[in-house]
Amino acid sequence: MCGLFGITHNEQAIEITHLGLFALQHRGQESAGIAATNEKSVTTHSGSGLVSDVLKENNLITLKQSLPIQNENRHLHSIGHVRYATAGGRHEENIQPLFAQVKHTPVALAHNGNIVNADALRFELQSTGALLRGTADTELILHLLARENGDFEKNIERVAAKLVGAFSLLILTPTHLYALVDAYGYRPLSLASLGTSWVLASESCAFDLVGAKRLRDVEPGELVTIDLKTNQLSSRRFAEIGGLKRCAFESIYFARPDSKLWSQTVEHTRFALGYQLGKESKVDADFVMAVPDSGVPMAMGFAEATGLPLRQGFIRNHYVGRTFIEPTSENRFFRVRLKLNPIEATIRNKKIVVIDDSVVRGTTARTVLDLLRELGAKQLHLRVGSPPIKFPCYFGIDTPQKKDLISQRMNVSKLQDYLKLDSLAFLSEHGLGAVLGKLDTCTSCFTGRYNDALSQQLGNPPQKAQTEGLQL
Amino acid sequence: MCGLFGITHNEQAIEITHLGLFALQHRGQESAGIAATNEKSVTTHSGSGLVSDVLKENNLITLKQSLPIQNENRHLHSIGHVRYATAGGRHEENIQPLFAQVKHTPVALAHNGNIVNADALRFELQSTGALLRGTADTELILHLLARENGDFEKNIERVAAKLVGAFSLLILTPTHLYALVDAYGYRPLSLASLGTSWVLASESCAFDLVGAKRLRDVEPGELVTIDLKTNQLSSRRFAEIGGLKRCAFESIYFARPDSKLWSQTVEHTRFALGYQLGKESKVDADFVMAVPDSGVPMAMGFAEATGLPLRQGFIRNHYVGRTFIEPTSENRFFRVRLKLNPIEATIRNKKIVVIDDSVVRGTTARTVLDLLRELGAKQLHLRVGSPPIKFPCYFGIDTPQKKDLISQRMNVSKLQDYLKLDSLAFLSEHGLGAVLGKLDTCTSCFTGRYNDALSQQLGNPPQKAQTEGLQL
Amino acid sequence: MCGLFGITHNEQAIEITHLGLFALQHRGQESAGIAATNEKSVTTHSGSGLVSDVLKENNLITLKQSLPIQNENRHLHSIGHVRYATAGGRHEENIQPLFAQVKHTPVALAHNGNIVNADALRFELQSTGALLRGTADTELILHLLARENGDFEKNIERVAAKLVGAFSLLILTPTHLYALVDAYGYRPLSLASLGTSWVLASESCAFDLVGAKRLRDVEPGELVTIDLKTNQLSSRRFAEIGGLKRCAFESIYFARPDSKLWSQTVEHTRFALGYQLGKESKVDADFVMAVPDSGVPMAMGFAEATGLPLRQGFIRNHYVGRTFIEPTSENRFFRVRLKLNPIEATIRNKKIVVIDDSVVRGTTARTVLDLLRELGAKQLHLRVGSPPIKFPCYFGIDTPQKKDLISQRMNVSKLQDYLKLDSLAFLSEHGLGAVLGKLDTCTSCFTGRYNDALSQQLGNPPQKAQTEGLQL
Amino acid sequence: MCGLFGITHNEQAIEITHLGLFALQHRGQESAGIAATNEKSVTTHSGSGLVSDVLKENNLITLKQSLPIQNENRHLHSIGHVRYATAGGRHEENIQPLFAQVKHTPVALAHNGNIVNADALRFELQSTGALLRGTADTELILHLLARENGDFEKNIERVAAKLVGAFSLLILTPTHLYALVDAYGYRPLSLASLGTSWVLASESCAFDLVGAKRLRDVEPGELVTIDLKTNQLSSRRFAEIGGLKRCAFESIYFARPDSKLWSQTVEHTRFALGYQLGKESKVDADFVMAVPDSGVPMAMGFAEATGLPLRQGFIRNHYVGRTFIEPTSENRFFRVRLKLNPIEATIRNKKIVVIDDSVVRGTTARTVLDLLRELGAKQLHLRVGSPPIKFPCYFGIDTPQKKDLISQRMNVSKLQDYLKLDSLAFLSEHGLGAVLGKLDTCTSCFTGRYNDALSQQLGNPPQKAQTEGLQL
Repeated sequence: MCGLFGITHNEQAIEITHLGLFALQHRGQESAGIAATNEKSVTTHSGSGLVSDVLKENNLITLKQSLPIQNENRHLHSIGHVRYATAGGRHEENIQPLFAQVKHTPVALAHNGNIVNADALRFELQSTGALLRGTADTELILHLLARENGDFEKNIERVAAKLVGAFSLLILTPTHLYALVDAYGYRPLSLASLGTSWVLASESCAFDLVGAKRLRDVEPGELVTIDLKTNQLSSRRFAEIGGLKRCAFESIYFARPDSKLWSQTVEHTRFALGYQLGKESKVDADFVMAVPDSGVPMAMGFAEATGLPLRQGFIRNHYVGRTFIEPTSENRFFRVRLKLNPIEATIRNKKIVVIDDSVVRGTTARTVLDLLRELGAKQLHLRVGSPPIKFPCYFGIDTPQKKDLISQRMNVSKLQDYLKLDSLAFLSEHGLGAVLGKLDTCTSCFTGRYNDALSQQLGNPPQKAQTEGLQL
Repeated sequence: MCGLFGITHNEQAIEITHLGLFALQHRGQESAGIAATNEKSVTTHSGSGLVSDVLKENNLITLKQSLPIQNENRHLHSIGHVRYATAGGRHEENIQPLFAQVKHTPVALAHNGNIVNADALRFELQSTGALLRGTADTELILHLLARENGDFEKNIERVAAKLVGAFSLLILTPTHLYALVDAYGYRPLSLASLGTSWVLASESCAFDLVGAKRLRDVEPGELVTIDLKTNQLSSRRFAEIGGLKRCAFESIYFARPDSKLWSQTVEHTRFALGYQLGKESKVDADFVMAVPDSGVPMAMGFAEATGLPLRQGFIRNHYVGRTFIEPTSENRFFRVRLKLNPIEATIRNKKIVVIDDSVVRGTTARTVLDLLRELGAKQLHLRVGSPPIKFPCYFGIDTPQKKDLISQRMNVSKLQDYLKLDSLAFLSEHGLGAVLGKLDTCTSCFTGRYNDALSQQLGNPPQKAQTEGLQL
Repeated sequence: MCGLFGITHNEQAIEITHLGLFALQHRGQESAGIAATNEKSVTTHSGSGLVSDVLKENNLITLKQSLPIQNENRHLHSIGHVRYATAGGRHEENIQPLFAQVKHTPVALAHNGNIVNADALRFELQSTGALLRGTADTELILHLLARENGDFEKNIERVAAKLVGAFSLLILTPTHLYALVDAYGYRPLSLASLGTSWVLASESCAFDLVGAKRLRDVEPGELVTIDLKTNQLSSRRFAEIGGLKRCAFESIYFARPDSKLWSQTVEHTRFALGYQLGKESKVDADFVMAVPDSGVPMAMGFAEATGLPLRQGFIRNHYVGRTFIEPTSENRFFRVRLKLNPIEATIRNKKIVVIDDSVVRGTTARTVLDLLRELGAKQLHLRVGSPPIKFPCYFGIDTPQKKDLISQRMNVSKLQDYLKLDSLAFLSEHGLGAVLGKLDTCTSCFTGRYNDALSQQLGNPPQKAQTEGLQL
Repeated sequence: MCGLFGITHNEQAIEITHLGLFALQHRGQESAGIAATNEKSVTTHSGSGLVSDVLKENNLITLKQSLPIQNENRHLHSIGHVRYATAGGRHEENIQPLFAQVKHTPVALAHNGNIVNADALRFELQSTGALLRGTADTELILHLLARENGDFEKNIERVAAKLVGAFSLLILTPTHLYALVDAYGYRPLSLASLGTSWVLASESCAFDLVGAKRLRDVEPGELVTIDLKTNQLSSRRFAEIGGLKRCAFESIYFARPDSKLWSQTVEHTRFALGYQLGKESKVDADFVMAVPDSGVPMAMGFAEATGLPLRQGFIRNHYVGRTFIEPTSENRFFRVRLKLNPIEATIRNKKIVVIDDSVVRGTTARTVLDLLRELGAKQLHLRVGSPPIKFPCYFGIDTPQKKDLISQRMNVSKLQDYLKLDSLAFLSEHGLGAVLGKLDTCTSCFTGRYNDALSQQLGNPPQKAQTEGLQL
């Protein structure tokens, strides 16, 4: 999971990219970076940490000063990236945007997704004399570009054809900004306008903050090229659409609720999932409550579908994040409470429907439910806004290995016992399809059905490596 | 507004105080500090900024190492403070807990409240040779203590009798921890137990995080004394209860919803205020939405009272805080959007009831409502979970001067026009009393009726000084 | 040991004070601070660490901005301080300049010296209700000032009369800058002019850096008063000169060689001490070398008096200071070598006269000599540019307790054996007097003869407390 | 100019490398870094700034923890680098040791010197698909290595053969540490032992600090290979010695005086240069003084050759470095005085011989001499410890372009007038050769005679680019 942002033809391109990344911070807290061009050179600033830590005012000023204005219109162009380590670990060399001289052209690149055939590409490149700095798959794309001998746009197409997996990319040179999305459209990337500037972002919440108007998605298999001199946008297809495979988890958990994702407002999608869940698995109870945050609109939908009252059972701590102190032994709910404090007066002696967006390892769910039980809940009914996750993701969501997925090891009935629930229900695959669109959605983590090319590639699917980052 | 925490008889007193302050962070982000004793000396560490910035792991280790264990039981005792500058500005000297040698005893003091007769006390102290370091009223208490010549406990009582205003205090010496609340009980302070330790905190959410069990409030006019040697808690009254004056704003806005405040869970109080508001001023609309966060339980109550659906119209950004970039001119809603992004698809073309907890200056309300209107809201009905604020607070809430309170300048009808609303209603004073308890609550900011002693003192009420800090 | 700097009537008073402190950095590396006035209020900035760490550009800008220009001439006035903890330890509260409201006047104070009767003064102040923040003797002066009831200038005189010990002081109020030196003149303080500004500094090297012209010393028992409005300097005597007691150690070790101290250039004084030493205790050898830095001019003088060649046997590392790594066991000379690397090719097989400025504990001398011996020196003759130190200093030099002074425990002959020397000689007391002036110099650390008032005070001299700071 | 350090077979390899770099800090203050291996992987830590800023204790601990011990003997092996930007500017990507996967082997590389044919190599590499990250010549070596297809040791030889210019290199892999010096031996690199560890360093002062025993120089054209498993050192020649070209400037100015450089102690070399200078150009004067630091032993030698007394005319400020404040107009000597304060009492009315190590641009000399004249020097005679510099350096000393070398524009007589001197003399080329060894020394900056291969390469010598870094 990562976030991309780009903008052309704006004197404040760098500042606006900073804001865009700030709006996309939920897509990656591990590193942040900006690359910009004055149509002559390309400069980057990036580092480990949050946008607010890495891209401070003086960093932006320094970055801007390194790019003296070349054109009459005083325009800069820039791209930015926030990173959640999916592949490649936390090494500094993996911080994006990556920068390199490709042939004799300076190129910056920002990537959201996961290249499934990275290991094979890496081995081949190294064997033929390429120097790899980091461990992330993104760097491979730059090396592949440097080895093509043609028009830069054609080279991008040729390289894209060699990549198997999920990728949305922004590529900045002194003359062009390129944006492309793989043929299956796993990860979102949208286009907007702000005055005479073109804007690109992973999610539309970034457009809202900078005041841009969303125009459309970049389509799967589409390469959008913006000529920085003429401000002209052109589009070409580098691949057939392979059958849409939009990531269900973006809608269920990852994207911000105020974003429009593939033309759907995420908040509404989650409300609809909760409503559908309510229709599917109603239960008698005193009230419905959510595990924040993704569960909140789901709980609203569930309450509306079932007529049950809605309550806030957990209060989220806005200052969470940096306490180093470990819990003392008598306080096993410490980790949860640091983030989500339950309201005992609400919970005690009540029959409660708890709504969570998903269950991955099951450890968080177990602690949360134990805590509610400890506070005196009379009955606990868990309703989950997505089907059981049984298979790892190869497309950029950092799910654990197969054996660590609890729904791989237990069916619903066993899981209900394990979590000591009075009842447990997941959203049905049918229900999910009804809300998200059955044909357009990648549900491989629920079903194990990958797309054709990948299934082939994964005939013998690689043991999922232990990676750092988002622990679902 | 400030937050207090204290604990006795615990090897991990310092670490637990750190956690307690972390849970009370919402009561003050300007500074944080801890004072601790090993029954021999008293040491403090404090600084400007958030708990997580000021009280880092190595700071706590250093603090602990400066207090070698003196007793068999390896016990430390400590108090902590988070600060919202109400009086005294941001000077470093005002950071609490304050520390001084009082006679020949080391004393640390943490204060929540506001001393109304501070100017007179300060003038007299300086005229008679006292050296004042900071500008905050808290320091005066230490000087007054140093000039008494008796038993320390008696001295505290004598000094408390000289203070006019609102104060909850924790005082730590090598032999005792003292806790007291002024005779009117403006600010909350509660007592809990954790194993054999006594725990004190402004709000019970701090007890939850550290695993302590809430016992009761420290009563108005009560001085609680804990003997650090014997672990014995004793209580005496230093003043008659003057008629309870619990701050209504703690319940409406300031306290954390998961806290028990004067035996009431705040979330429930806010739900009840919203429910009462719904009963009082129902309106036909498509749905109810809140201005987060205090408005959320109020909106739930309003929805339940009126039968209207509930929606999330705003999404709060969890990373807010440190973006330095100013909005470009075309983006006047930038400041709001940085914190609260509205969901256009929810709002467009809808008749909406917006619930806010209070209206102080009116500037935030205006921007928020303009933004909703800009996004295409068909009708906007504002319902406010408290009565109009017409008078400044002298008891620790940093409301602006009288002339800057919009309800001082406009009646409800004029304000409705000014905010371009389809309808506007505040909670009635009667309704507020019904929920909070008519006799026990300080409602002076709504009514201008202060308590007797203060009204006398304020016969010619001081021009409210321009202070920094919480801008309601 | 500390350094003082002050300047009046200068738009760049703060920047110039920063430079002055930078030139005086050798007098104290523990903390640094500046206080300034715009003739209305007084503001300070200070902190732990070097001038370059504490007084960064943005700190000075902030300090300046807090003092909006009040007068036509755009003048500011300021004092500064660098600190070597002699009494009071390293507590933050002891960082100078100290600031307080004295009566209703803001006062900043900077102090170089040591108050011998501090304990008695402290006890009395605390017993009568004064609140002491720090542990340093400087704070007492402010409290004493606050308890006087007269004209401020008279109050300073009255307080000065109560202080026993060594003190040079700068006191800044919105209307005046005061400078005074105790009746014995233990510590230096000089006056200079820079354009229309008056400048004060502990050493003249600070005048050189800021381009000021040295005028004269502030005399013992003199109170210099500069009226900030009129720019007029006046002088009065608050005490008879008690017989000059200029600290010999300033000349021998502490002051910078390029400073003029009591009208003598320190480099020349040290050369003369070395020359005298050469006359007194010539020895046959291959060459003379110094233990840097104070020993260098002494070695030059010794070489010239004896006709022996001069060599650099040690090279000083300019980057010393912050390496944290401890020596491995096989490398017992690590600590010395980190700072002073000997040149083996110079030393091996040679008969060497080593010049050091003084011997206090004897530990450094022993390691240095062992290292030279290990590198193959054939003979080692130590010549010391001052007499044996047998008594502790009560006037601001942080010598150890009596029992830790090696010359207290061993006579010269025993010490020669202990240090495994071929010969050892100290400068004679007579020789010291011949160079420094017999009557004007405090030689109590060599002779144990304090001045009359102090001998009385010290009839039963206090056990020297273990203090932090300069370890001679 | 840069500094190299390496050590094998030591549990404390990382800590010792830190110390070694600390001792070599004078060879580069711009960046510092360490690479280490546990015989399995290679990890680096590096950054901009001084050793004490970049390599803090926790950085070393983290680095060490990233390398779990693989072998029984608990050995680590490591190399380090401090950098003075000569070519490539200050970009972060140029900080060394550089790291890359070369084929499938992790490789770290540290480089001291300057590759003259870097532009041609860079162009060719980029044209054939290599991705270059930084702008420094060092990176090219890694790319060249990655394109060879043979035994790693052979590959190093083949690559070394392609490099024209000055280079001393350390290369670390999980199995070997390689050290090599170009065929002309421009830059020093020595070998030592510490217990069972092999140690390599640019200068022997690093051996002294870590307690290692110097064995010999790495010879020009020699490749030293240390097998990390067996601890066996082997040596082979990759090139004929091209006629030694040891950099004269290392001896004159750059190296630390306590280092043994090419078997000569630098302090002694400088003394000898000063002595020779005294023989060549004696003058009648009151005394000799140095411009510190390199001038000090030269002044000693000059004094001894001429019989003139020696004095310290300048005192060096030990805290120099970080003052940001610009001089006020009346103080044009500020920059000099910040670093070197002259002693007026020494200088006034005296006939003085001033010894400086070299004159490059002439600007520093002019300011220093003007300052002495301003302080009342009666006569000023400048004696320079090296011949006039008339040609730029292509081998790693960052001299300016030809036109900025003052001796290119003025002969000695004109320069004497320009500097307003009573007399001026440089060391003769003959005298330099007599001290340094005529045949072994690169004197191209004095004579313009480069070695054969380079003269060919430089038939049309490249316009010296404006680079950052050491401004002689």
